[in-house]
Amino acid sequence: MKTISENRAFGGVQGVYSHASAETGTEMTFAVYLPPQAEGGADGRKLPVLWYLSGLTCTHANVTDKGEYRAACAEHGIIFIAPDTSPRGDDVPDDDAYDFAKGAGFYVDAAQDPWAANFRMRSYIEQELPALIAEHFPSADMQRQAITGHSMGGHGALTIALRNPDRFKSVSAFAPIVSPINCPWGQKALGGYLGPDKTAWRAYDACALIEDGAPLSNLLVDQGTADQFLKDELKTGLLALACKKAGIPAQIRMQDGYDHSYYFISTFMADHVKWHAERLTG
Amino acid sequence: MKTISENRAFGGVQGVYSHASAETGTEMTFAVYLPPQAEGGADGRKLPVLWYLSGLTCTHANVTDKGEYRAACAEHGIIFIAPDTSPRGDDVPDDDAYDFAKGAGFYVDAAQDPWAANFRMRSYIEQELPALIAEHFPSADMQRQAITGHSMGGHGALTIALRNPDRFKSVSAFAPIVSPINCPWGQKALGGYLGPDKTAWRAYDACALIEDGAPLSNLLVDQGTADQFLKDELKTGLLALACKKAGIPAQIRMQDGYDHSYYFISTFMADHVKWHAERLTG
Repeated sequence: MKTISENRAFGGVQGVYSHASAETGTEMTFAVYLPPQAEGGADGRKLPVLWYLSGLTCTHANVTDKGEYRAACAEHGIIFIAPDTSPRGDDVPDDDAYDFAKGAGFYVDAAQDPWAANFRMRSYIEQELPALIAEHFPSADMQRQAITGHSMGGHGALTIALRNPDRFKSVSAFAPIVSPINCPWGQKALGGYLGPDKTAWRAYDACALIEDGAPLSNLLVDQGTADQFLKDELKTGLLALACKKAGIPAQIRMQDGYDHSYYFISTFMADHVKWHAERLTG
Repeated sequence: MKTISENRAFGGVQGVYSHASAETGTEMTFAVYLPPQAEGGADGRKLPVLWYLSGLTCTHANVTDKGEYRAACAEHGIIFIAPDTSPRGDDVPDDDAYDFAKGAGFYVDAAQDPWAANFRMRSYIEQELPALIAEHFPSADMQRQAITGHSMGGHGALTIALRNPDRFKSVSAFAPIVSPINCPWGQKALGGYLGPDKTAWRAYDACALIEDGAPLSNLLVDQGTADQFLKDELKTGLLALACKKAGIPAQIRMQDGYDHSYYFISTFMADHVKWHAERLTG
């Protein structure tokens, strides 16, 4: 693991690191915020971990610059991890569109060529990066993890949590894509990465996973009413319906006048960090 | 005035606007955050205003993206204004260096050609932009203004406040250039914009203004001890000495391990907003 930068912030350290990923076959960059409480890590006290998965076109840097999570993580003693959204580099196949390939890994393990070799973001987030974090950040308590994300990353957070109920004590999302099977972004991505057999898509669709019986003990979602993608891509109502049918206690809050941007995310970030902290430190 | 963008954030509105500036002869962009309390502006209730002047290479966008001021401004009911740091555009003369000309206006009215025509950031911040704000933002109480800034913008905040004691109820700074007469950045900028006569420089040097008797009723400065520019450019100790000699009650806080970045600024931003709010709303 290489250190790209470390800066003191809110009494802790905001780091950016990279490593050679076996899953993606590329150098992958990610950000870790260690709150001030982590400085006692050497004495064996461990802190809970909140994963944040980013949306289309983003890297680790968007939320690191604009997410405003550090004050709340410092207050509650939470480690915050922000991975990239896809493999990068000249050797990785790409597409001209903003919503497929680089910057748009959709947190799937691709089965179709030419994507299958590098686009393994599911295994990267579910297996490889947690192992790296556990190895290099001794203050991270991997027994107490939570996950959140925005848009495509909200889809990632929901589906990864639904498939790994023992790993995550809580899950939340900001303006998530709740059912890629049922929206243009998702149909393009799942069709491109997985191929036309839609039965394979269900493992990557939060609503389908809930319909198929995946357990979820709690859920917090914020969604802006002025979000330009709400009607055609995000379709929050499908998630509310799926949770209702399955008896999952979901708190889905429609936020009046908010759009899809980091102005929206940063407004509710402290709420989400606090909500996770209550479930991670109780 | 043109509206470039308006986004709901922390219950208020983060706006970005532009206008044709008579002072600089260019289109100038600036950001205004109106907290939720401003929505009652039509009933005549007015809110205090905090100006933030940015550092070298910055536009309005750096602090708007990374400054983390909106939560505190929403809490305290403060309007936050972030101007650009220089004129922009193809017709404006420039220099290849990052520390002179575009992105580096140093908040002076230039007297030397070819800079004199456009580089009039002193008059722009002191006269033209406040008049525009008063005209277009009826909730802004121009009788209750405060000012802060970072690095070159900390120099701007200090010197503008020292020259306009009746306008600002409080002044603070993050890692300011405290004496441009005595550092390479400042000598290059003041020499370039004003010419070799150093008597003209004193109106643009916080320490010289204090030595020359400019009044200052209060001051808050945060400065990171790991700031790479502390020793050669910022020289915080000169400001502490000038304040001590003049009997100005300055709170100059050396912050252990912090550097010159927005990780530092955002950490202490809420403190500064609160400090100004106490002086603006008391």
